[in-house]
Amino acid sequence: MPTPIITLTTDFGISDWFVGTMKGVMLGHAPNANIVDVTHGIPRGDIRAGAFALAAATPYFPKGTLHVVVVDPEVGTDRRAIVVQTDHATFIAPDNGVVSLAVGHHAIRTIRRIENRKYWLNPLSRTFHGRDVFASVAGFLAAGSSMAAIGPRMGDFEQIHLPVAVEEKRGMVGEVLFVDHFGNAITNIAEGGETEGSIYLRGRRLCAVGPSYASVPEGRPVGVFGSSGYLELAVNGGSAAARFKLKAGTRVDFRW
Amino acid sequence: MPTPIITLTTDFGISDWFVGTMKGVMLGHAPNANIVDVTHGIPRGDIRAGAFALAAATPYFPKGTLHVVVVDPEVGTDRRAIVVQTDHATFIAPDNGVVSLAVGHHAIRTIRRIENRKYWLNPLSRTFHGRDVFASVAGFLAAGSSMAAIGPRMGDFEQIHLPVAVEEKRGMVGEVLFVDHFGNAITNIAEGGETEGSIYLRGRRLCAVGPSYASVPEGRPVGVFGSSGYLELAVNGGSAAARFKLKAGTRVDFRW
Amino acid sequence: MPTPIITLTTDFGISDWFVGTMKGVMLGHAPNANIVDVTHGIPRGDIRAGAFALAAATPYFPKGTLHVVVVDPEVGTDRRAIVVQTDHATFIAPDNGVVSLAVGHHAIRTIRRIENRKYWLNPLSRTFHGRDVFASVAGFLAAGSSMAAIGPRMGDFEQIHLPVAVEEKRGMVGEVLFVDHFGNAITNIAEGGETEGSIYLRGRRLCAVGPSYASVPEGRPVGVFGSSGYLELAVNGGSAAARFKLKAGTRVDFRW
Repeated sequence: MPTPIITLTTDFGISDWFVGTMKGVMLGHAPNANIVDVTHGIPRGDIRAGAFALAAATPYFPKGTLHVVVVDPEVGTDRRAIVVQTDHATFIAPDNGVVSLAVGHHAIRTIRRIENRKYWLNPLSRTFHGRDVFASVAGFLAAGSSMAAIGPRMGDFEQIHLPVAVEEKRGMVGEVLFVDHFGNAITNIAEGGETEGSIYLRGRRLCAVGPSYASVPEGRPVGVFGSSGYLELAVNGGSAAARFKLKAGTRVDFRW
Repeated sequence: MPTPIITLTTDFGISDWFVGTMKGVMLGHAPNANIVDVTHGIPRGDIRAGAFALAAATPYFPKGTLHVVVVDPEVGTDRRAIVVQTDHATFIAPDNGVVSLAVGHHAIRTIRRIENRKYWLNPLSRTFHGRDVFASVAGFLAAGSSMAAIGPRMGDFEQIHLPVAVEEKRGMVGEVLFVDHFGNAITNIAEGGETEGSIYLRGRRLCAVGPSYASVPEGRPVGVFGSSGYLELAVNGGSAAARFKLKAGTRVDFRW
Repeated sequence: MPTPIITLTTDFGISDWFVGTMKGVMLGHAPNANIVDVTHGIPRGDIRAGAFALAAATPYFPKGTLHVVVVDPEVGTDRRAIVVQTDHATFIAPDNGVVSLAVGHHAIRTIRRIENRKYWLNPLSRTFHGRDVFASVAGFLAAGSSMAAIGPRMGDFEQIHLPVAVEEKRGMVGEVLFVDHFGNAITNIAEGGETEGSIYLRGRRLCAVGPSYASVPEGRPVGVFGSSGYLELAVNGGSAAARFKLKAGTRVDFRW
């Protein structure tokens, strides 16, 4: 059997046994699966952050990868759970929009509601569908079960949308989407047009856009069109977020 | 060769090279082993926390899994090290009780003292038996070495016991065993009897027991019989432990 | 195909999607690769800490392992990237000295400059060569591409050197190299000569050298020649670094 590749993206953290337990369930079905952690550091219940991380990571996985996503603040209620298969990958998640950015413009082959309890653990817990539903379904699919068995077809699934940067006469008005481990603030100003100019914050010019973090002296701010395709605000060797009090939603202007 | 499955549970954290080094040793014997981290976030030397995590995770791994556990405050002394094989799994650990909750009611096939230095790294360090003894023995066993070669049979191994909840006329008197990543406080009040009632803390009624974390409005407390089979005290979208100053040992009353 | 073994050592942390994304790229080339995290907790841009962790871990991995190291503060500038193959392992990293301690006394077979863009992702980002260059090259090598294809031979690569402890009449004068997760302070005083004596800090005798952390009562300091081959300053059950304000560079004296 070729090696099934499965990824996990959750808000579970790694201090408890939750993530390891999900892997145990999956390996019970597909013992040779290659299971990769995208991250378990999504802030608790932050569907947008989960969706953003998933969209940044999944294009780099091989075709046929199974992506399991558990950012699920409504666990135990009657929120739906879904499997979405595109021409590139399969996503298994609660139906709360967390997969919508990653699915993006890929062609969707099928959307299934996770409903057939034969593919769940029994008994089903009230609090850990990551283990009892999502990992179990992923294990079955990795081992070759058909999508059709998981549950009935659905016509659509929940979408979330990122705020869109607005083009003005001499630049773009955007905002911070995400602050990474290094304190770099990733904005919603996408690469594709002008790549030279200045960044303004709270009405004042902060810095120029440059070709790398290290294109300015250590400790100085710089804008860089980064690896996710968006303009980032960084400090060489430091944290732009801490220094300039940046967080999701902070307005950032890029002027040519 | 089928894929050996090995898990790791330690108090090593993940900021150093310790866990990766243990995996290197195991892969030297069994390069195709599927190695899963249960957690490396056990508080330093906290045998009970390690035992609890292990007992929560191991039932969900396939039969034949090797579980390596290194919560070992007595490393370098003459504390014993053991391999315990049950009808479901094999545990490799210091003999300090850390495997006793996971072994639980499983039928024990053999208990061996880890003694044969041929199965250890040479030289043996004073401080890292996780690498030099436990990972090495796990690698040999994963690659097919016999249990008998590891060392002599033993009749028993160290046990630890969780505090037992006490049934009273109209409820149970228990205590917090563990606080998880989300700040949920897992008590020793096991599911199995009444599932409806109220939770009392420090003599006052706090909340009802409900079917899910999200069965109460955001920010409100709720009791839920959780995924480990015990009553948890939670706050929807928040941390019950931080809000109500809960930690291992805090008394919790459940009244019908 | 035998299972390729690949390790990762970075300063990326694990809260974002960076590490998972690198694994996705590698699995696209070698889906059955066994990928091991050495650590992603290297302090940002700390080449010496990365070099030290790598040198501590790599001797324990099987022959033929590919070690990918991304501590790369100069990403996006014209700093060079290299592949170094020894008689034991292959290292893929920026040419900033981060692999120099691990390569150590191994016989070097070849040093190649990473230059052939056919083995990189296209387009190449400005900020994430971990994904676009290092993971991609590692994937190709794991899948069997030849070293010669990666780029031209080089004669040498950047070296870093640890400060050397100085022998005096009745002891060694050293310093702290690294503080681990437990707060143990690893010095540059190597095992090999005297192993009994006393540790002096800031001119005062602190403690003796003993055979294990637990050879002194809980809460008391002790010196132990540890698992990396160096004298460590520890507190049984506590943090020597926090208690005695130890950090990289703190002078430590060992007297016979």
